[in-house]
Amino acid sequence: MDFSSKLLENAVNEVSRLPGIGKRTALRLVLHLLKQPTDHTKYLSEALLQVRNDVKTCKKCHNISDTILCAICQNPKRNPEIVCVVEDIRDVMAIESTAQFKGLYHVLGGKISPIEGIGPQNLQIDSLINKVESGEVKELIFALSSTMEGDTTNFYIYKQIEKFDITTSTIARGIAVGDELEYADEVTLGRSIVNRIPFEQSIRG
Amino acid sequence: MDFSSKLLENAVNEVSRLPGIGKRTALRLVLHLLKQPTDHTKYLSEALLQVRNDVKTCKKCHNISDTILCAICQNPKRNPEIVCVVEDIRDVMAIESTAQFKGLYHVLGGKISPIEGIGPQNLQIDSLINKVESGEVKELIFALSSTMEGDTTNFYIYKQIEKFDITTSTIARGIAVGDELEYADEVTLGRSIVNRIPFEQSIRG
Repeated sequence: MDFSSKLLENAVNEVSRLPGIGKRTALRLVLHLLKQPTDHTKYLSEALLQVRNDVKTCKKCHNISDTILCAICQNPKRNPEIVCVVEDIRDVMAIESTAQFKGLYHVLGGKISPIEGIGPQNLQIDSLINKVESGEVKELIFALSSTMEGDTTNFYIYKQIEKFDITTSTIARGIAVGDELEYADEVTLGRSIVNRIPFEQSIRG
Repeated sequence: MDFSSKLLENAVNEVSRLPGIGKRTALRLVLHLLKQPTDHTKYLSEALLQVRNDVKTCKKCHNISDTILCAICQNPKRNPEIVCVVEDIRDVMAIESTAQFKGLYHVLGGKISPIEGIGPQNLQIDSLINKVESGEVKELIFALSSTMEGDTTNFYIYKQIEKFDITTSTIARGIAVGDELEYADEVTLGRSIVNRIPFEQSIRG
C-alpha cells in the first residue's frame, strides 16, 4: 500500500501488528479515529499505556489484577483447598460467569508448546507445585483446553504432583447442553459415553 | 463481562469502541499487548496520537497528507485539468495503484447520507464547485461507489456544475475482468450491455 502520509502509514503499521488485523482493517480503524473527536484517540492511547504499564498479576493465583492479591484470592468465602488450573484470565472469566465454582484459581499464563518456544519454565508451574507441596491444596481441577498442548501441560503437572496426597480431576468433556447427538464429533461423543454419570446425579444438576 | 482489573476493563472498553471490534476481540487484543514488550504498546499509542493530532489534509484535494499540498497535487507531471471525485483516501490509494490515472483528485470526505446526518455542507463540495467555476478543471470523473448515497452525491454535484463548460464522466461499471457472466448480478450485467464499448477499444486496453 502506498500512503500519502507517513504519519498515517506509521499508525496503520502499528495497528496491523496486532493479531488478526491486516493492513486494510488497520487503515479502516485509523481512518475511523481520524473522523472521531481527538479525545477518543487520547482515551484509547492512555488506556492502553496504563494497562500495559500498571497492571499487576495476583501474587497468589497470577491472574491479572490491580491489587497485590486479586479479589477472588482475597474473598474469605472462597475455599482455598480447591484450586482450578487454567490457561489465562479469559478462562477465569468464563468459569466465574457460571457461578458454579467456589474455590480458587491458578493461572498458568499459557500452555507448554515447544513449537511456540513455551516451556514449563515460562509458565507459573513451579509456584503451583509449591502450593501443592505446602499442603494447603486438597484438590486440583485441570481446566486447560483439550488440545495436544493442554494435555501435555496437564500431564507434566500431574507427574510432578502425583507423589503428594491430593485429589486431581479434570472438567467433564461431553455433548454440550442443548446439542444434537448426530452432529457431535466422534471423540467427544465417545468420551461422553465412557465417562457417563449416574442418572440421579444428572437430574440434580 | 466481569473483569478482575479496572485497568484491563477500561482498555477493553476503549478498544471495543472501534468499529467491528467486540468485547471478546478487544480482550484478545489487549491480552496480546500485555504479553508483548512494553515498547509495542508505547509505539502503538504514540503512532495513534501523532496521526490524530498532526495529520493534515491537502489544501487543494483534501486528501490526507503530511504537507500543505499533497505529493499528487505537487507533482508537475499530473494534469490539473482532469479531476477525479472520490469519497476518501482509500479510493485514492486504489486508483493510484492502477497507475492508469494522471490527473488530480478531489476527496469529498464521505457521501451525502441523511440517515447518518451527513449533508452537502459536511463534505468538500463547495471547494469542488469553486474549482470548476475558476475554469482550471476541464473534465470531472465521478468515482463514488454506486450506492444510493453515491448516486445522490453525484447528482447533487452534477446539478451545480452543469451550467459550466465542463466534461463529466463516471467510471465504467461492468463485469470484472476474469469474472464469469453467469455469476454476475443482473444490474451489473445489464449496465455492461447498455454501456458496451467498441471491440477495437477493448483490445487496446
